[in-house]
This record gives sequence, C-alpha cells and structure tokens, in this order.
Amino acid sequence: MVRRNASGGDDHDHDQQADQTATMPSMEEAFKATQVPHWRDQLTFRAIAVSFGLSLVFNVIVCKLNLTTGVIPSLNVAAGLLGYALIKLWTVVSEKCGFLKQPFTRQENTVVQTCVVASSGIAFSSGTASYLLGMSRTIAAQADAGNTPNNVKTLSLGWIMAYLFLVSFVGLFSIVPLRKMMILRYKLTYPSGTATAYLINSFHTPKGAKLAKKQVMALFHYSGISFAWAFFQWFWTASDGCGFNSFPTFGLLAYKKRFYFDFSATYVGVGMICPYMINVSLLLGGILSWGIMWPAIEAKKGDWYNADLPASSLHGIQGYRVFIAIAMMLGDGLFHVVYMLTSTILSFAKKQTSSEASEEVDNYDEKMRKEYFLKDQISNKVAIIGYLGLAALSIVAVPHIFPQLRWYQILVAYLIAPVLAFCNAYGCGLSDWSLASNYGKLAILIFSSWVGLDNGGVLAGLASCGLMMSIVSTASDLMQDFKTGYLTLASPRSMFFSQILGTAMGCFITPLVFWIFYKAFSVGDPEGSYPAPYGLMYRGIALLGVEGFSSLPKNCLKLAIYFFIAAIVMNIITELLRKFETKYRLYRFIPSPMCMAIPFYLGAYFAIDMCVGSLLLFFWELKDKKKARAFAPAVASGLICGDSLWGIPAAILALAGLQPPVCMKFLSAATNSRVDKLLGN
Amino acid sequence: MVRRNASGGDDHDHDQQADQTATMPSMEEAFKATQVPHWRDQLTFRAIAVSFGLSLVFNVIVCKLNLTTGVIPSLNVAAGLLGYALIKLWTVVSEKCGFLKQPFTRQENTVVQTCVVASSGIAFSSGTASYLLGMSRTIAAQADAGNTPNNVKTLSLGWIMAYLFLVSFVGLFSIVPLRKMMILRYKLTYPSGTATAYLINSFHTPKGAKLAKKQVMALFHYSGISFAWAFFQWFWTASDGCGFNSFPTFGLLAYKKRFYFDFSATYVGVGMICPYMINVSLLLGGILSWGIMWPAIEAKKGDWYNADLPASSLHGIQGYRVFIAIAMMLGDGLFHVVYMLTSTILSFAKKQTSSEASEEVDNYDEKMRKEYFLKDQISNKVAIIGYLGLAALSIVAVPHIFPQLRWYQILVAYLIAPVLAFCNAYGCGLSDWSLASNYGKLAILIFSSWVGLDNGGVLAGLASCGLMMSIVSTASDLMQDFKTGYLTLASPRSMFFSQILGTAMGCFITPLVFWIFYKAFSVGDPEGSYPAPYGLMYRGIALLGVEGFSSLPKNCLKLAIYFFIAAIVMNIITELLRKFETKYRLYRFIPSPMCMAIPFYLGAYFAIDMCVGSLLLFFWELKDKKKARAFAPAVASGLICGDSLWGIPAAILALAGLQPPVCMKFLSAATNSRVDKLLGN
Repeated sequence: MVRRNASGGDDHDHDQQADQTATMPSMEEAFKATQVPHWRDQLTFRAIAVSFGLSLVFNVIVCKLNLTTGVIPSLNVAAGLLGYALIKLWTVVSEKCGFLKQPFTRQENTVVQTCVVASSGIAFSSGTASYLLGMSRTIAAQADAGNTPNNVKTLSLGWIMAYLFLVSFVGLFSIVPLRKMMILRYKLTYPSGTATAYLINSFHTPKGAKLAKKQVMALFHYSGISFAWAFFQWFWTASDGCGFNSFPTFGLLAYKKRFYFDFSATYVGVGMICPYMINVSLLLGGILSWGIMWPAIEAKKGDWYNADLPASSLHGIQGYRVFIAIAMMLGDGLFHVVYMLTSTILSFAKKQTSSEASEEVDNYDEKMRKEYFLKDQISNKVAIIGYLGLAALSIVAVPHIFPQLRWYQILVAYLIAPVLAFCNAYGCGLSDWSLASNYGKLAILIFSSWVGLDNGGVLAGLASCGLMMSIVSTASDLMQDFKTGYLTLASPRSMFFSQILGTAMGCFITPLVFWIFYKAFSVGDPEGSYPAPYGLMYRGIALLGVEGFSSLPKNCLKLAIYFFIAAIVMNIITELLRKFETKYRLYRFIPSPMCMAIPFYLGAYFAIDMCVGSLLLFFWELKDKKKARAFAPAVASGLICGDSLWGIPAAILALAGLQPPVCMKFLSAATNSRVDKLLGN
Repeated sequence: MVRRNASGGDDHDHDQQADQTATMPSMEEAFKATQVPHWRDQLTFRAIAVSFGLSLVFNVIVCKLNLTTGVIPSLNVAAGLLGYALIKLWTVVSEKCGFLKQPFTRQENTVVQTCVVASSGIAFSSGTASYLLGMSRTIAAQADAGNTPNNVKTLSLGWIMAYLFLVSFVGLFSIVPLRKMMILRYKLTYPSGTATAYLINSFHTPKGAKLAKKQVMALFHYSGISFAWAFFQWFWTASDGCGFNSFPTFGLLAYKKRFYFDFSATYVGVGMICPYMINVSLLLGGILSWGIMWPAIEAKKGDWYNADLPASSLHGIQGYRVFIAIAMMLGDGLFHVVYMLTSTILSFAKKQTSSEASEEVDNYDEKMRKEYFLKDQISNKVAIIGYLGLAALSIVAVPHIFPQLRWYQILVAYLIAPVLAFCNAYGCGLSDWSLASNYGKLAILIFSSWVGLDNGGVLAGLASCGLMMSIVSTASDLMQDFKTGYLTLASPRSMFFSQILGTAMGCFITPLVFWIFYKAFSVGDPEGSYPAPYGLMYRGIALLGVEGFSSLPKNCLKLAIYFFIAAIVMNIITELLRKFETKYRLYRFIPSPMCMAIPFYLGAYFAIDMCVGSLLLFFWELKDKKKARAFAPAVASGLICGDSLWGIPAAILALAGLQPPVCMKFLSAATNSRVDKLLGN
C-alpha cells in the first residue's frame, strides 16, 4: 500500500545519478560505439532465466513484507544490481567455456529489470496479504460481522492462480497505446524509471561496472550476514513469544505496548532505504496510538465497549485500531486521488498547448532515444483487441470463481478502469506516486455496497478490488518501465514481451510463495509473527461498505471522522507549505498520514527497527557521505534479501514439523522466581 | 597465574616496535634536544594522580579477570596508552589555562607506567582470588576435608590490607642491588619492559604521538561500546542462569557441558591480545576435559565415586576436575622451574667469562642510557637494611594474623625468597616468563605439610604462598620496569619511589576493589558468574600438602599422575623441537599444558570467547595486516576496559539491592510448554 510512498530510495538514487549525468553531458555519446541489438536478441534465454530466479527471490521478499507489516520499500536498485551481477556472471562463465554468443547489453539488462518489476508487481497487486487474505475464514472470524458463508471463501491455490491469470494481463494492454503520449509527448519524469535507467546505463560504462561490482559485493556480503542472523535467531524461537523478535528492548511494559526493537534485519534495511520522514511518521503514529490513544480508550473499557469481548474483536479495542487506521488511510487516499486528478487535468490542458514547442529542443541523446523508441511498434489495434478480449474472458470467467460478483458489475469495472489507469500512470509520471491501492479501496466501497451484505457484498467488494488494483497498478509500473526502456534504448516490443512474461511469472510464483507461508505459519493472527495487517483492514473497508457505520463501537465513528479530516488537513498543509514556503522547506517535516496509520494497528516495533536503520544511515552519511550514498541502497537491499530469503528454509522447516529447539523467554523477575520454583532450581 | 604466559601482546608489540627501530638507528639521537629532568621532577603530582586513577581502573579489571577465569592478559599497552593520553590531556588543559609549569617527558610517562604496573601487580600477587580466597568458608565448604576452624579464616578488609602492607614491600628491596647486574652487565632483554619502553619512546616522537592519538581514540571507542554492551546485558539477568552470559549458543546440551559463547566483550578482547596458540590450548583443554574425560568419568558414577555426593564435592566429579588440573599445572610449573634454574646457571656461568667483551661495543644510545642509569644511585646499604627491617617486621607481625604460621617458618621463607627472586628476575629477563605463582604453589606444599592439618596447615600453607609470591613476583615485575626506565633514561631513584608508591596504592586499592566484588556477588560459587577457579585450586594444593593423596577419589591419583607426566613431556617435546627442528618451527603448534588445565575446572566457554577474539584478529590481519597490528592491542584493551569497568556500577547496583528487571531465560521446547502452562498462556 505504501509502496511508492515508501520508495524514497528511488528519489535518493535519482539524486545520485543526477550528479553523474552532470559530468556526463551526453549519455548516448558514451555508448556510440555499442550496437543496439535487434528486439528479439534483447529477449535472450539467459535474461529470462535470470528474471525467473530474481522473480522468485523478490516474490519471497515482497510476500514476507506484505505478511508482516505491509511496508514495502522500492527494491528496484536491488533488482537492477542483482540482474546485472547474475547476467554478468553468466556471460563471464560462458565466455570462459567458449559458449558466449552475444555480449551483455544494457537493453538486455532493462528487459530483466522490466520482467522482475512486472512479476514482483503481481506480488503486490495480487493482494495475497490484503483483499484475498481478507476473504479467508481466519480474518472473517476476527471481524464478527459478515462472517457468513457467502461472505467467506476458503483460500486455495487453484482458484487464486486462475483469478490472477484472468485479471492481471488486462492492465498491460490498457496502457500500451498511451506510452508514446506519456513519454515522448509529455516527457513525464517517472523518477523511479529514470533512476533505474541511469543505474543500468552507469553499470554498462567501465567506471560504472567497477562501482557496480563493489555494490554487488556489499549486497551479497550483507545478505549473507542477514541470512546468518535470521538463521541464528531461528534456534531460540521454540514457540510464540520466544526469541529475539520478542526481545523487550525497552522493558516489559513497553513490550506490552509493542514498543521494542525486534532485531529484524529486514526492517532495519527497509528503514535505510525509506526517507527519514517516513520512518519518523511511522514512529509518531506508533507513539500517538499505542502510547496515548489506545491506553486512553482502554481506560473506558466497559463504558465505550463491552469489557468481556476477546482482544481481537472488532467491537472492542481492535475496532478502534482498525477503523481509525482505515479512516486515516482513506482520508489520505481521497486527498491524493482528488489532488492528482486535478493536477493531471490542469497539467494535461497545459501540455496540450505547449507540447509543440518542446519538440524542438531535441539533442543527440533524445534523437537516439526517440529513434529506438519508435522503431519497434506495438500497434494500437493489437492493444485494443487484447484489452477487449481479455476483459470479455474475465467477465465470463470471474463470476465462476466469485458468484457474488455479476457479469455486469465486472463490465462496469472494466469500463472505469482504463480511465483510472490513465490517471494513475500520468500522476505517477509526475510524482512517482502510485495510488493503485487507493483506487482498489474505492472499488471495495462501491461494489460491496452495491452487492449488499446478504448477497455476499464483502466478497464481491474484495474481488472487485483485485480487478481494479491490478489494472491501475500495472499501468503505472509498466509505464515506469517504458521510461527506463526509452532511456536505455531498449525496444518497446521486447519490453512488452518481457512485461507479459513477467506478469505470467508473477501469476504463477506469487500464489505459490504465498501458499508456502500460509501453510507454514499462522498468517493473519494479530499476535503472531505474520499479522498481515491489511487482511483485516481491507475486510474492514468492505464491512463499512455493506454495513455502514452501525457496527462500530461507541465513539469510534467520531474518532474515525476526526482522523479522516486530520489526514486531509495534514496533506493540505503539506501542499500549501510546499508551494508557498520555500525558504526552510518546512513541508518536509509534516509526517505522512498514510504512514502514521500503519502502526495504529501493528504497534511501533517495526517503526523502531526502521528508525534504527535511519540512524545507521545518518551516522554513516555523517562519516562518509559519498560512500553512504553509493552503498546504502546495496547494504539495505542485502539486509532485506538475506533475512527474507531465510523465510523459505524457515517455512520448509515449519512444514516438516521441525520446531526450533530452544525458547529464549523474557520473564519479569517475579515471574522468573515462580518459573524457577516450577523447574525446581 | 598465566599472566606472563598469556602476555603474548608484549611479544607482539615488541615485533611491531622492532620494525620502527630498524628505521631509527639511534633512538637517543632523536631525543638529543630534549632535556632529561631531575629525578624529583620526574615524580610530578600529575603523574601520581594519573597513576592513582589508572591503578583503580586496572585493579578493577584484574580483579574481575581473577574472579572469573584467572586468565589475565598483559595490560601494559593499555596502561602505556592511557597514561600517555591522560597526562597529555592534563598538560594540554593546563597549558590552555596557563598553568603548565613543566612539559610532559617520557621519563614521567615511565614513572606512571611503573607505578601502575606495581599497583596492578599487587592485584595479581595479593591472591584475593587465589590463596586469600582459598582461606574463606565458601571455598573450604566445597573441599569437605580441612573444613576445621583453624584451617578457615573469615575474610575481612582489615587483616587483608594489613597483611598485604606487611608482605608486599619486602620484594622491592630484594632486587634493588641486582638491577645493575641484570641490566648493565648481563644486558638481559626483558621483552615486556623493552616493548613498553619502545612504546613510550615512540609516543614522544611526533609521528608516534599521532599514531598514539588514534590508538587512544580506538581504545576509548571500543571501551564505550563494550561498556554499553555490558550495561545492556545487565537488564536481562534478573537471576542466575539468565541473560546473555547464559546463552546456549551451541544448544542446551553443549551449554550443560559448558560449551557456549557467553557474549563477554572482556574475553573476546583477551583473546585478541593472547597469541593464537594460547587460545587454541584453552579450547583443546576444554574439549578434552568437558567433551571427553568428564562424561567418561561421570559414566562411572557409583563405581569410582559415591553417586549421592553433591556436584561440588571434591570427593566426586569435582575432585577429578580440580586435582587433574592441579597436577597438570604443577607438572608444567616444575618443568619450568627446573628448566629455568638450569639455564640460569648455565647462562650465568657463561656471562661471567664473556661479560667484559660486551662492555666495549657501547654506542651513543647505550652511553646515554648507562649515564642516566648510574646517575641517581640507590645504595646497597639502604636496600639491605630495608629488606632486613621489613622482613623482621613481617616475622613479628604476620603470626598475629595467622597464628598457624610460626615466626621461624616465616624466617625460613625470607631466607629462601631472595634466591628464588633472583632466579625469577633472571629467567624473566631471558624469556619474559614469570614463574611467581609456581614458586607460590611450591611454598604451599612445603609449609602446609610442615605445619600439618591439625595445626592449621592449610591456612599456614596459603599464607606462606602470599609471602613467597609477593617477593618473587615483585622481583620480575620491577626488573622489567627498571629495563623500561633504562631505555627511556628515567632515573632509577624516581623509578624506585614510583614502585614504592605503586605498591602502597596496590595494597590499599586491591583489597577494597576485591571487597566490593566479594560483598556484591557470590564469589567462589562454581556455577555463578564469579567462580574464581584458583580459590579452590590453591586450597586443593594445600590439602594435598597436609593430607597427602589419601583423600582423592578412586583413580584420581592415577589420572593426575598421567597428566602431571604429560605436562612435563609436552614441555620437553616443545623445547626439543624448538632447538632441533627449525625448519617448520613445529614447536609453535604444541599446546601449553598450563593453559589446557584451566578449562578442566571452568569449562570451555571463555576459551570460545577467546577463540572468537582470535578469529576476529585473524580476519582483521587478513584484511589489513598493518592496521590490525597497530590497533588490535588498543581495540582489545578497550573491550576489556569497558566491560570490566561496568563491574563497578554493577556491583553498586547489586549492593543497593537493585535487581535487573527482566530474566532472559533459555528453555527447551518441552520445558517451555510446561512454563507456558504455568503462566496460563
């Protein structure tokens, strides 16, 4: 959900790469002697093989992040680096063996990057941790209301995969016709795509290759450390509440209020990639909610809500947590949708009149890029037929999976979607901010209230979220890729096939990876290691859609409205400051409401991890700014990769029924003497 | 006990400094322009103040090391560095304030160094963790035999301090007449003293000052980290068996056999200073004993020894541990005493004939050094009168503290002592190896069997150990200092007063520091954090003296004899290889029997810490040999200082009755579910 939002790493890279371009007036001059291969030769077997391997890795990472906190940083740098390293390794090895047929080009590198982004995009938009998980019995049981047979669907690998294949390709075709307009005509920046392109370009210059090698080494080094640390931690977690991730770093009282450092290398890494303000926002949200609000509300137990309710009931304290968080997210989302639509329309109108002028200032770089971007066309006819055909297939087939959703409702979704996809792709080109999940939430509200509780509105809403999010998310992600391709002279056709391939990989890998986690761990248990916060959040939105606000506990609606308004006001203040206060740039110090809302449900523990990451980065930058800038993304990616990859052996061990041997337990001095008495010491 | 033995750091420094001297043909040429102050001006107030501060720090460190494992590395480098840093700071501050009367000279630095060595020497030879502790009821209760009123003495601050003041100054006077012979005539090397002198000399050259500053920074940096880590660890140790120092790193089974990494920064630092072979010897000893021998002996429970005995009884498994360790140490000690006596006599005879020749090759450095060394004399008359007077005082006063020891027995001790002191000082000059504790053990055996069990022979033996060790240890330590003084042009008279001052500080500080630890923690409990292994060892030797071998459990004597012989054989093999196999220098790979014996009693946990230190050093040297050589001693000293200094606040907290709030406990999965049931989770 906060995917683009938290992807401050991209901006960061962008700055860094911008420095390099300043000393390198024409990038394409440097590549003048290098031939650009035919589009078919850009889609090599090795590129596909490497893409598949990396897709697997990134799916595991994204899946784990989704299921723990839902905060997902941009992994583009890691994908670019690893893609480069693996293909380089491949070519070096085949050269040594005398098998090298074709040199490694930056176009091929872009193809790998595109494929990996497409497939790990599915891991995000497939909603295995949000709308799909929200359909399950585990989450339904936590919500009390709406726990009826036609509002619950047992998760199974078969229908999830089928559903993903049905809805995921449509988005691809929806944006193809727009690519020339977005990139050539409006010259949108697409910061992430541009940064990735500069990264890839720089890797393929001699100096860049050397730096890349060092960065890759750092990535592997920290990935190894992080894997070893995760492995080491495993031994001491014989059951829940054991091990380093239950370490009451600030004391047992703070631990109960979910303030502790849980020694997770992943979130320390995530914290290093995310901008400082994101991490501070998360921490502020944690302090505000778990430090102040929840204790205050819990003091009203018995008055505001029934004191006998289980801790996980949405009619109790959990209800305040979930719905206030939802309100804040919806407020933030609504502001951004409105803001983006307005500025898209304004900017669109402006460009229409001034676009002719900008065409004149083409330099050598742009000439070359334009030439290759227009060389291999994908005809609009193919795109339109593809979109209509796939939409028709989806309209016919999806009701077989979700009988709660009628064919005409899906048709409506497919009529609205391209418009929203365009808005999102355009907005993302301006701000690097994809609002896919906000459109998804909007879809939940619309369709679940349309269908109604008795007809399975909860499930219908969640399913429609998938349809909508998939198209909207694909649109912005893949337009970023086209920008990358444009800047690296990759053929749009090879890019398109790479995207199709990546999407197919994603539809196949994502459910499998999710399934391993789902079977091995108690996913969705709010007290467990994999609380998957968005499962309950998304179901909560659907419940709001079908039930209205009647089901909320006392004063919850009032508080939710306050926070909804507060989120909008904070955004307005930020935008006003950004526009009118340019001296101190105070807008940088307004926290993000979206980020503040996440710990409302989860607690501050991962925010503390991320702030530790921020602190490390801060001191590193203080010590050696240049080195920190060059290596922090690699180190952070390494920390994330290693820790997340341990998820696979951990899941296998859990599936095999192998429990860790020891429990590292934290007991208060008083409890400890009771335990010692029991153990006869 | 393994003090000099483990002081590989000195050799190490020596190598390093030797490199510097190669490029600096005449050290004294470099100092030609610097005036050497009058001996009274070398003994400045600031030097005394800094010495007092450092004495306190080093006493805490040595006391803590004594009480945990008894392995004490050479802290000379740390003392030199910190002494330099503190006086430098003092002079810089007073210069800024306009108070500086006298510049900081290397002679002053040597005075500080000497004073600190003298006072921390007392911490070692005072036996607060060995013979004095061995007199206490706690240790006596563990040994069963000899637990009679006249063989036990309740420790109290008063008599310990009085006893130390009585016995510690005698040694000083015994060696003064020998200093010219040892240093000028025989030109003995005294590796530690020489290394320290080069260190001090190098600090006072401009390049050296810069390196020293960096080293001091590293020392403080790591000392801070280590202190913070110790502080952090405190919170989780609500009771015994809690916290990081009970971390079953290799599983619960290995933990029961005392194989675990206990996260002690101190012993990681100690491991970095000690030579690799020392650490490997310790680990080998741990594996041999706790991995193989003790389990094998425990399998004979009920046959070899009574199965109903408590685990700490010397008639049970503990007896095998203690007496086999003693046998190995005695074997090693006996070999070294004999070897040293022989080679001392041989070398002495040789020098007698060839000493005239060496006098001729005096260069400028030696001329200057000789001049200053002979400038301020301490007359032999003063030395002899001092020795006789103090010995007489001791003969009269000590029986008032220990009625078990008769005046004529003390007289005998004072008659033998100067001879042994000479041997030790001479041997140490050759090999850097002080055998003080071996002479001490010999004294225990002789005097305890002379007095006999019924007349309090155990106590008499232990008390005589103090008399003997104090003189013998002082002799070698202070001759090292005279060598340092000789090489830094410090006046022998200022050195002598500095030694007296340092000894007085030691006699005052050591008992106080020990008393804090003794009152705050359960010192001497074999399962606790402060097992103080030598307490029981030394009492065991005294028991052997009074009781003979009759009290040992079955087969224990046989095994002890095997190990006694094995220790001698290993030493013989080492010496033969050293002499006759110079190609691969295989003697370097023969483990040290003395070191192997320590974990027999304690287990391998601290050996694992030390091997971790070795590994860190090894990888550091692999990465950057030069930097590792220059900074490893400083980093290691920092780790030791910080962790040990935490001992003071920890002791104060314990005395104030403040318990850590949380227990970090390690439970097997099965036990954990029992505990969870108890706690109602």
